[in-house]
Amino acid sequence: MRELSYRMLEMKASSVRKLTKYAEEAEAKGKKIYRLNIGQPDLHVPQEYYERIRAFDEPTVEYMPSNGIPELLEAVEKYYKGAGIDIDKKHIYITTGGTEAVMFTLLALTNPGDEFVLFEPYYSNYNTFFTITGATPVAVTTYAENGFHIDRESLEAKITDKTKAIFITNPGNPTGTVLTKEEVRMVADVAKKYDLYIISDEVYREMVFDGREITSFGFLEDIHDRLVLVDSVSKRFNACGARIGAVISKNQEIMDLISKLCQGRLAVSTLEQQGAVGLYSTGYRVIHQIRDEFEKRRNVVFENLKKIPGVFCEKPEGAFYMICKLPVEDAGEFLKWMLLEFDDNGETVMAAPGDGFYATEGLGRDEIRIAYVLETDKLARALQILAKGLEVYNNKIK
Amino acid sequence: MRELSYRMLEMKASSVRKLTKYAEEAEAKGKKIYRLNIGQPDLHVPQEYYERIRAFDEPTVEYMPSNGIPELLEAVEKYYKGAGIDIDKKHIYITTGGTEAVMFTLLALTNPGDEFVLFEPYYSNYNTFFTITGATPVAVTTYAENGFHIDRESLEAKITDKTKAIFITNPGNPTGTVLTKEEVRMVADVAKKYDLYIISDEVYREMVFDGREITSFGFLEDIHDRLVLVDSVSKRFNACGARIGAVISKNQEIMDLISKLCQGRLAVSTLEQQGAVGLYSTGYRVIHQIRDEFEKRRNVVFENLKKIPGVFCEKPEGAFYMICKLPVEDAGEFLKWMLLEFDDNGETVMAAPGDGFYATEGLGRDEIRIAYVLETDKLARALQILAKGLEVYNNKIK
Repeated sequence: MRELSYRMLEMKASSVRKLTKYAEEAEAKGKKIYRLNIGQPDLHVPQEYYERIRAFDEPTVEYMPSNGIPELLEAVEKYYKGAGIDIDKKHIYITTGGTEAVMFTLLALTNPGDEFVLFEPYYSNYNTFFTITGATPVAVTTYAENGFHIDRESLEAKITDKTKAIFITNPGNPTGTVLTKEEVRMVADVAKKYDLYIISDEVYREMVFDGREITSFGFLEDIHDRLVLVDSVSKRFNACGARIGAVISKNQEIMDLISKLCQGRLAVSTLEQQGAVGLYSTGYRVIHQIRDEFEKRRNVVFENLKKIPGVFCEKPEGAFYMICKLPVEDAGEFLKWMLLEFDDNGETVMAAPGDGFYATEGLGRDEIRIAYVLETDKLARALQILAKGLEVYNNKIK
Repeated sequence: MRELSYRMLEMKASSVRKLTKYAEEAEAKGKKIYRLNIGQPDLHVPQEYYERIRAFDEPTVEYMPSNGIPELLEAVEKYYKGAGIDIDKKHIYITTGGTEAVMFTLLALTNPGDEFVLFEPYYSNYNTFFTITGATPVAVTTYAENGFHIDRESLEAKITDKTKAIFITNPGNPTGTVLTKEEVRMVADVAKKYDLYIISDEVYREMVFDGREITSFGFLEDIHDRLVLVDSVSKRFNACGARIGAVISKNQEIMDLISKLCQGRLAVSTLEQQGAVGLYSTGYRVIHQIRDEFEKRRNVVFENLKKIPGVFCEKPEGAFYMICKLPVEDAGEFLKWMLLEFDDNGETVMAAPGDGFYATEGLGRDEIRIAYVLETDKLARALQILAKGLEVYNNKIK
């Protein structure tokens, strides 16, 4: 049979899901798994989501306008103006999740050979969209030792004639790092100096802890012509399954291209857009609840991790992820062992192997990503199991 | 600012929506428009859709499995087995509309330079996905004079070393043509002879009139290894806004690649998948209602078109579209004139210009696509207006 797409054949499967089959094996044997491997929180969706959806009773469930329903565009505009970011509804297209926003942005920007500079470790799912568009990700390595913060010199060192954009996730997944005002300004200045676009995935925007200020690229009006924001209701309102996102830019040329893509896929779910209007109607009530809950969880996870000998991490600043170094050579092997060969009273823990979040071969092998998406008592128990597992694993090896 | 994607810049906007701004102008002046330009029927969504959605009350709206929820996979499997097509749920991935199914299929199949043979006039939205994937559409022209049916010689004439697949829409959009059993067999034989894949978009599968048999490529088991079916609930259950489709293949290699793409975009809407389970629970009750209603409408449209001097079309066999030739040189100009300069008692008609459905420059200029998506009395009135418009237009020109 004729060859399928080489690019797709070469693309690695998602590292976050790499351990899935071992987890299934473990569960088949009756083991209970605390899952810290995926970004699916346990928090409840606001009731306003269901209320709005249940009230919808149009006899015909029609295609909606390809850029989104007016009520939702207005709700997103209101949210942005309320956040102090000068965005009008004409700068907003509703997408099927933040993932579609990323894909459409890369499709609009990419020509063969184009490079996108981003900071590793980074959200590995982006690689799917780099593969689709033929874009080349170029990674600037950041380090656990300084909380995965960024500096100008390392960034500029990676910029070439082929660089099309700087691609940021802020707050960071998988790092939980919140860029400082100065870092955001620095990235903006570099983008201006080299005439680059900035794609900023800010789906965790308000999840910043310890009283930190939000640092959106949207605040910097002097780069609005080169900025694309990726947004979503998934994390902001705890509605991952709604698959409602947005792509936002004041660059009309980019939006015109994305508009063609929106038309090509016709429309976004009619009902889910209604639900999203309900979500935005909750304003900061839900946004702050979610942030406060994750800050509590962050504290539990960090305090417990600090107690485990040989584990290293800086205190995460936002989102609900963190990368931590384990006292093992190959964290992926350790996690597999935890699923298949270890348990503490019939229970074990699952996290995501760190190396999947790096583009540079060999990095992150002793790291894991923890998504602290469980209640605090469950998190405390999960970390107790992790500590015990590490002890047994390292004794076994020595 | 650095250049955006050349491909996207070159891509033409959707021809179906080309007249939109003139329609808005006409409506602003108080004109009533009978819209026959887009495939958005006025029929009601089955109540089972809303029932299932309103019954869903999980506190957390989680990401679902990237290939779809088990209940929906089972419902689609049951539908296929009931239709006499041997498809198991492991051969089915749920997608966000048929559009995502088309995109994922082309992404999985395409390498630079690959050609996809399809029959023009064809659904112009496919061009978006050809552009995205870099695939080259190669069109075999079919003609109104024989109801847009196909023949082996014209098909084989377009096959080259670069041909990757034959891409079919059956029943056809924009033609309303239903391939005969012999035509389907012929395409299958050609695909085997040249070792090609077949992509068959069968979203209008059951909309076949005059007691015709359904002619799905799924019935031919000897090509299951090279077949990808594109499917959707949009037309089958009149739920366009749900954005629930499916990509179906027994070729495991293709499904493995599409699986990576499904994982990259994480999941399909949780609630809409629930709604789709409700839709499939209606079985053939709704499917046959919809078919019968469109057959009635087809009759009204065809009888009325036949009466208009100079209009030519064969009797459409399925779906809810037809292409007809008008006694004008440029149907796009005529349609624009109908919106901006003509009315009959304050009313006018809108259809889609035919040339947008052809890849070959210059073809279809005297054609329009009619989507008969209104009730029969409205259709009769719309065609009365069309007849009057043609008369005035041609008298004016002479």
